[in-house]
Amino acid sequence: MSIIDQIIAGDVRATARLLRDIDDQVPSIYPLLKELYPHTGKAYVIGLTGSPGVGKSTLVDQLATRFRQEGLTVGILAVDPTSPFSGGAILGDRIRMQRHFLDPGVFIRSLATRGHFGGLTRSTNDMINVMDAMGKDIILVETVGVGQDEVEVANSAHTTLLVTIPGMGDEVQAIKAGIMEIGSIFVVNKADREGSRKTVRELRNLIELGLRRKEDTTWEPLIVQTEALKGVGIEDLYQAIMKHRAYLFDNENGQLDSILMKRARSQLIEILRDEALKAILGRMEAQGMSLEDLSRRIRNKESDPYTIVHEVLERELK
Amino acid sequence: MSIIDQIIAGDVRATARLLRDIDDQVPSIYPLLKELYPHTGKAYVIGLTGSPGVGKSTLVDQLATRFRQEGLTVGILAVDPTSPFSGGAILGDRIRMQRHFLDPGVFIRSLATRGHFGGLTRSTNDMINVMDAMGKDIILVETVGVGQDEVEVANSAHTTLLVTIPGMGDEVQAIKAGIMEIGSIFVVNKADREGSRKTVRELRNLIELGLRRKEDTTWEPLIVQTEALKGVGIEDLYQAIMKHRAYLFDNENGQLDSILMKRARSQLIEILRDEALKAILGRMEAQGMSLEDLSRRIRNKESDPYTIVHEVLERELK
Repeated sequence: MSIIDQIIAGDVRATARLLRDIDDQVPSIYPLLKELYPHTGKAYVIGLTGSPGVGKSTLVDQLATRFRQEGLTVGILAVDPTSPFSGGAILGDRIRMQRHFLDPGVFIRSLATRGHFGGLTRSTNDMINVMDAMGKDIILVETVGVGQDEVEVANSAHTTLLVTIPGMGDEVQAIKAGIMEIGSIFVVNKADREGSRKTVRELRNLIELGLRRKEDTTWEPLIVQTEALKGVGIEDLYQAIMKHRAYLFDNENGQLDSILMKRARSQLIEILRDEALKAILGRMEAQGMSLEDLSRRIRNKESDPYTIVHEVLERELK
Repeated sequence: MSIIDQIIAGDVRATARLLRDIDDQVPSIYPLLKELYPHTGKAYVIGLTGSPGVGKSTLVDQLATRFRQEGLTVGILAVDPTSPFSGGAILGDRIRMQRHFLDPGVFIRSLATRGHFGGLTRSTNDMINVMDAMGKDIILVETVGVGQDEVEVANSAHTTLLVTIPGMGDEVQAIKAGIMEIGSIFVVNKADREGSRKTVRELRNLIELGLRRKEDTTWEPLIVQTEALKGVGIEDLYQAIMKHRAYLFDNENGQLDSILMKRARSQLIEILRDEALKAILGRMEAQGMSLEDLSRRIRNKESDPYTIVHEVLERELK
């Protein structure tokens, strides 16, 4: 049985090996990713994003349990370095997660690389594709919602949950600042805390003022309050996700197509950016131009990075 | 007087125009950046990074005041979308900032772009170079310390302040997870809050366990407690920065060279990555290959992004 067949059959060991190679950016992944690509597109991808400490991992944990109750298989991808899924956990969290480790219907992996030359968005997309090809029905992707890459990742999910907690005025500030215009659903977690209603009210005002996810212009974002640790509000959140899913799959509004086009475009650009850089750096090295020497010339003001890049591209591009 | 001469003479209007063009990624910036490059390298760059809400902008504000007392000129660059400097502020903050707006010795700009095709690190580096060339002695760069780009930016500063507040266990988690190994100085702000000593103790333990900035392996990170809003601890922080500066400029340890080499390398790679992608996309478009069409082929599974990128690079690279 080929590696591809093993992965498509859902073999955990073969899949884990490929994901590790993606994380390490081993060149042998490309033929495999090409072959797997036609087998992607069946999974429903849910992004969860928000600051550290808002409880994203606990929500992922609860949602995984809820989807399992429907008999659906779940892939969990933690791009958040503070996530217990990715090993940034305190002990208690890690123990709590173990119930899923024993369930063959749940496949959990984290992205460890903060790569040499970037590539976070690209590796995340690749990993989502692999989990999709291995047959997971639902893929939950946890990212920290601040950096540019992380927002990009969240943006290519079917449904994006923007998670916040009461009293984080800064969260609302961030929304106003424009980077957070990506939520299909706003989750106010730890809703038993003081200020929960105020946060909900502020979010509602922002939505009424026209805050919309660029991909879903006709979708009015939902607001759900949860206490993820106790499981409170998880059913509401599940229903909200199903509602957004039904909205996307309503052919008349064309929103699903818009999201899939955006994802295709993001994959194309991220892979091109990465591979172009790698190919050019490889050629430079083959010609004896080391990054070390060039950096020294820049550092010593014998040249500048703009001139060097111009020269390199003149030389390497047809 | 040429634009270059105006900028070198510290002309605010000419500089502001170039910075706006960098933010918009206008192609006309390259010849100017090339010409300015030999005039860079005099400024001392201080990065401040940490989660939203820890008080980075208030610290920037206080440090700017402190450096002004020494007669030094200050550039402030806000890469953080939640920073009051970048317009993500609530009204009170913005009013507080105005004292610097009236001081010609302080030049404040923010980076608005969350660019089409990335480029955050690159634009930030470019803007630091411009503020450097215009003669600012100190450049304070405020970033959100979570994303990969933001960490990269902080990493190329002379001195990096990692800002946290008491009771953010997640912050310490993030440090353990490895992304935060970039602080020359740890600042525990809002130190009047409960748990401040505990946070300091935890940080001290991590430092004793060998937490070190990769660039300064022989530097033992300092910990400073501040209450930035009241100005408490700012003098300690200033002295800590001066101590780190003296350490860097001690020629025997070679740490300054290591930081400058890292910055040169980062600039080279980020510009190359960006320009290679732009050049290739431009050539594709000139040949009538639109991103839209290619994305549709990927979306429809007529091809996959790996195959398309492979074909494009075969065609475009010599």
